[in-house]
Amino acid sequence: MAGNLPTATEGRPLKCKAAICRKPGSPLTIEEIIVAPPLPREARIRVICTSLCHTDVTFWNMQDPSPRILGHEAVGVVESVGEGVTELTKGDLVVPIFLADCGECLDCKSSRSNLCSNFPFQFSPWMPRDGTSRFKDSKGEIIQHFMFVSSFSEYTVIDTAHLTKVDLPIPPKLACLLGCGISTGVGAAWKSAGVEPGSTVAIFGLGSIGLAVAEGARICGATKIIGVDINPEKYEVGKKFGVTDFVHSGESKDKTVSQQIIMEMTDGGADYCFECVGKASLMEDAYASSRRAWGKTVVVGLDKPGSKLSLDCGEVLLSEKTLRGCLFGGLKPKTDVPTLMKRYLDKELNLDEFVTHEVQFQDINKAFDLLIEGKSLRCVIWMDK
Amino acid sequence: MAGNLPTATEGRPLKCKAAICRKPGSPLTIEEIIVAPPLPREARIRVICTSLCHTDVTFWNMQDPSPRILGHEAVGVVESVGEGVTELTKGDLVVPIFLADCGECLDCKSSRSNLCSNFPFQFSPWMPRDGTSRFKDSKGEIIQHFMFVSSFSEYTVIDTAHLTKVDLPIPPKLACLLGCGISTGVGAAWKSAGVEPGSTVAIFGLGSIGLAVAEGARICGATKIIGVDINPEKYEVGKKFGVTDFVHSGESKDKTVSQQIIMEMTDGGADYCFECVGKASLMEDAYASSRRAWGKTVVVGLDKPGSKLSLDCGEVLLSEKTLRGCLFGGLKPKTDVPTLMKRYLDKELNLDEFVTHEVQFQDINKAFDLLIEGKSLRCVIWMDK
Repeated sequence: MAGNLPTATEGRPLKCKAAICRKPGSPLTIEEIIVAPPLPREARIRVICTSLCHTDVTFWNMQDPSPRILGHEAVGVVESVGEGVTELTKGDLVVPIFLADCGECLDCKSSRSNLCSNFPFQFSPWMPRDGTSRFKDSKGEIIQHFMFVSSFSEYTVIDTAHLTKVDLPIPPKLACLLGCGISTGVGAAWKSAGVEPGSTVAIFGLGSIGLAVAEGARICGATKIIGVDINPEKYEVGKKFGVTDFVHSGESKDKTVSQQIIMEMTDGGADYCFECVGKASLMEDAYASSRRAWGKTVVVGLDKPGSKLSLDCGEVLLSEKTLRGCLFGGLKPKTDVPTLMKRYLDKELNLDEFVTHEVQFQDINKAFDLLIEGKSLRCVIWMDK
Repeated sequence: MAGNLPTATEGRPLKCKAAICRKPGSPLTIEEIIVAPPLPREARIRVICTSLCHTDVTFWNMQDPSPRILGHEAVGVVESVGEGVTELTKGDLVVPIFLADCGECLDCKSSRSNLCSNFPFQFSPWMPRDGTSRFKDSKGEIIQHFMFVSSFSEYTVIDTAHLTKVDLPIPPKLACLLGCGISTGVGAAWKSAGVEPGSTVAIFGLGSIGLAVAEGARICGATKIIGVDINPEKYEVGKKFGVTDFVHSGESKDKTVSQQIIMEMTDGGADYCFECVGKASLMEDAYASSRRAWGKTVVVGLDKPGSKLSLDCGEVLLSEKTLRGCLFGGLKPKTDVPTLMKRYLDKELNLDEFVTHEVQFQDINKAFDLLIEGKSLRCVIWMDK
């Protein structure tokens, strides 16, 4: 592009360090890899920092022998762009987002959908447009992508449908959070549920996503935000994000206990219930805890493949309650994520409290330990300078 | 009340004829009964005509030894009122409705609910306020009520929370239809789903309620209204109520066939799907046939007690679809039913075509035969003159 001198690496493969997942559940190995230049409608990104989300851990544990580069919450700088890229140029700050926003399909053009039909979401190990990889290890072996982002690498290649430009002065370590979990939670309350001022909310599971739902509900004006968790320590954490009440759901207890408590706390059921763990039985609990007539339950957590949610047909009909799911909180990546950044800069949205830990890239496995041990909400991993 | 001379029967028990259900599945017997005068907040109604709904047939078949008076779609004239009744006076034309509208509780005052919390809906055999009966047979045996209406009787006593006043010149044989089935279907499209102009609709089951959903969707401006039924003759009937396309779902066929056909017909799923049979597997089909992101499935049919609806957790989350139930089409009896009457008088709502048969009260068992044999949509039963 006019006015932009080519970088030394532009148009050529470049070598850099990446943390590769080679064996399920074993520490990532930091290795030198080769990152191909971007193909048409793609951009190569220099990652500034990245944060660890539970979905990374889930896939890290999966029995898949193919080496891959995990990581999908990040912020970076465009190093170079492929042919036909007009909306981005090198040097632009971007947040990669696993959910595509092509801007051209029926869904992307509709205000009622965030599910791009040109690039439907799937857990694909390849680039979305041509189904191949841009990564090789030093021996020439192909390395798989992850969620169209693969940010556990100094450089990565991402389709422009998956890149949101950052035009606001938001700190990188907070910008990266908006790539998945925190946006998902805030969006679930704001966009998918449409929480209204004065309403009551019950959140099942106070991990980062559940806390982000609380934060979203707080911003939307909910007056009672009930956190439900098996860990009673979550109440104190939750208060930072708007949680006003807490139900300690002991795992061994009768599952109807938390429903009954919520029914009493809300005089007949919460206006909005959110399942943020990914467990079918909790989805049923959430539904049972919602208010008849206008109660809405939003499923935010992803359960294991094949798991089924069971509802009593009579209750569905006679209670008139609503159930829906949401992916990325119902947010449209390229328009709603900048709105969240603005809400942060306007001091309305609390993002700082989600960052509980920061490590250098070489210590990335520590981030896994912290999350698995339940010690961190978000651990930001800084690429080595 | 001033200006109203007392009727000969006012304040005293009166004798009249009623069709009593004494033995499951056996013809109703027309007998003389005694109807007590209305207690506070109740009215005694002289029934003009009543129509037969599938719910009457369902309960007629149930193994309950207690004699009762079925019927819940009717129109009548107030014969006398109990203490404290100010909104109605004798001579008023009324449509009884099984769903209460007390006008005083949080739900009745909210535009978001039609589920009265003072008198929650239940299949109770008694009057809602004091839990007793106003009916006795000639031997003094107590006769049970049904759905707070019991219109298969020349006179019945109904709580004023269950009475909608008719101020518009709508023919009685059409007014009675609005007491349950037809309102439920039209309301499901209009109120519960909120069908929008230009949208696509799929209706599973083209009985009277499914046809009323089609009629409601037509009025709301849906451009493609797909009927799904095991009986291919339903297509011709459906056309009278706005059905534009038809899927013949043979019972023995692979259940995914109708989903696939609907997906193709609508380019990815219907915007609104309605289950109007009361079968869990059809509810699942309807959900599967709805459009990802904004697709909404409304459960209108009531399945057997204890039946469960099963949804894939992954699909719930990733498709973002919405599921909800509706009772009486989400309509508020005292405000929305008069609106439907007005839409009929404005020649927008087609009610006439629902009345396929008319019989005199003495032939009430013919109405059962016609409905069970699938020959009638609505058979209006006229009280003998």
